[in-house]
Amino acid sequence: MEPIVLVHGGAGDIPDSRVPLKLNGVKKAASIGYRVLKRGGSVVDAVEEAVKSMEDDEAFNAGYGSVLNLDGEVEMDATIMIGANLNSGGVTVVKDIAHPISLARLVMERTPHFLLAGEGANRFAKVQGVPTLPAGSLVSKYAREALEDFKKHGDNRTEIGEKGVGTVGAVAIDSKGRMAAATSTGGINGKMVGRSSDTSIIGSGTYADDNVGAVSTTGHGESIARFCLAHAIIYEMKNGSSAAVATANTLKAMTEKLKNTAGAIAISKGGDLGIDFTSKRMAWAYQIKDEIHFGIEHGQHTKEKAKN
Amino acid sequence: MEPIVLVHGGAGDIPDSRVPLKLNGVKKAASIGYRVLKRGGSVVDAVEEAVKSMEDDEAFNAGYGSVLNLDGEVEMDATIMIGANLNSGGVTVVKDIAHPISLARLVMERTPHFLLAGEGANRFAKVQGVPTLPAGSLVSKYAREALEDFKKHGDNRTEIGEKGVGTVGAVAIDSKGRMAAATSTGGINGKMVGRSSDTSIIGSGTYADDNVGAVSTTGHGESIARFCLAHAIIYEMKNGSSAAVATANTLKAMTEKLKNTAGAIAISKGGDLGIDFTSKRMAWAYQIKDEIHFGIEHGQHTKEKAKN
Repeated sequence: MEPIVLVHGGAGDIPDSRVPLKLNGVKKAASIGYRVLKRGGSVVDAVEEAVKSMEDDEAFNAGYGSVLNLDGEVEMDATIMIGANLNSGGVTVVKDIAHPISLARLVMERTPHFLLAGEGANRFAKVQGVPTLPAGSLVSKYAREALEDFKKHGDNRTEIGEKGVGTVGAVAIDSKGRMAAATSTGGINGKMVGRSSDTSIIGSGTYADDNVGAVSTTGHGESIARFCLAHAIIYEMKNGSSAAVATANTLKAMTEKLKNTAGAIAISKGGDLGIDFTSKRMAWAYQIKDEIHFGIEHGQHTKEKAKN
Repeated sequence: MEPIVLVHGGAGDIPDSRVPLKLNGVKKAASIGYRVLKRGGSVVDAVEEAVKSMEDDEAFNAGYGSVLNLDGEVEMDATIMIGANLNSGGVTVVKDIAHPISLARLVMERTPHFLLAGEGANRFAKVQGVPTLPAGSLVSKYAREALEDFKKHGDNRTEIGEKGVGTVGAVAIDSKGRMAAATSTGGINGKMVGRSSDTSIIGSGTYADDNVGAVSTTGHGESIARFCLAHAIIYEMKNGSSAAVATANTLKAMTEKLKNTAGAIAISKGGDLGIDFTSKRMAWAYQIKDEIHFGIEHGQHTKEKAKN
């Protein structure tokens, strides 16, 4: 099996001006993840490192650059899952942590639980020696403007704008068919304090099972959760669909039923890929051997030589 | 279609001394839910009222009588879901609220979100006029003893003891085939502060879809969440299994894969029931016409005339 790390940078109504930033970010993240696998790292290492690089990148709504809640704060969600044993870890409405995905991994590895919320998650971070950043450190100028805009004009929640959401995620498979998935987000612009998202939920934002496949989703979180989008895609693959067909059909069914849009990336246990979105755009990328594949428009599939 | 409200009072290693309390509580809850439907209430009203009655009852690990976290506090999770439109609402790690299930319903009906966590959930409760109880009001003597016991002896997490967990839940169908599901819990004894459970998660603890069925689960929360138990049962029904077969097979698969036990109740869109558990015991009950059906042991199905 050829190792692959496939990433997305969020689905939504991304304006033209943000397209190059998103594409640069997903290509970089895919390469980082791929290099982890190539140097012998695990699929969990690979998805974590890929997601971390997007959490650090202001172009994405995760970690630094996350959208703000109604109090003007960043509250973040993340989950990570291992396909071999269905182990998973997550955090929800966590504050002032640079890499929520790494904290999610610590929840998986160092607690008997799968999800820690709010202050409890931050308390766990302190015990684990994960630095708490000074309040406001993760707030970008762009996020502040987006919240002001929301407070003035509201938000068209049925077609999520770029200022609305933009979850990031990664799925990976190694040469032995081992899989992992990871997803991280700042949530939805102008959300209520304490709003927890699909990204913190196994089965909605993230799922991985070596007997079936791995999935990470993005888009209108309330719809993704109500539809259990990641797990629904997994079940379509379990029922015999390819990753591409399972992803396309399930997204279509969700959007028809709930009238909101989303996107998803998936890898099947056979290593075939699903990349699809009912939103206007979704940035995605993967590296295979020395070639980067990427796109952001419907139907786009561009290739270029990897830089490393 | 004959209207039914089916409830459970938690799966686990329930000691003999607690059996009568559990059975009384589930029979009462089933009758309360059934009367709501009979007097023209909705399925959402029915599952909410059934769960509220168990939240009030010290015999159950939900609302008053919930188990405690390591700080000795009650932190609760609840979700409610409507099968007609997949609307849902939930709260996680909420404190000092008598009826988390009613707060979950307010999240569904009065916010654009599906899940509020921690302080944000409590802040929402205040805005909605839901009383915040004095700290410690929900702590029972039994729960305090259980935590002391946990701190002394630890917990056998593979066979959940009665002092460990005991989620409550309800599923309902009315004469027109409309369905709803609701689940509420105090979580797991001796849990970390901020530990969020499967009960707060659509697809794990609770699911309802009028095109398929309604499910509420109980047992080892971390396993239920990793297996997406409620949604997995829904998919088995979608693939053609009866509620009974879907519930039995999915629980068996979860316990084989993850080595922990659970229980579930389900109603299919045709009105047939699934009641099963891989744990030692699970209290359940439903009323149909003037007869109460109930049980707590494997293979038990007792009937008696309803009191109302």
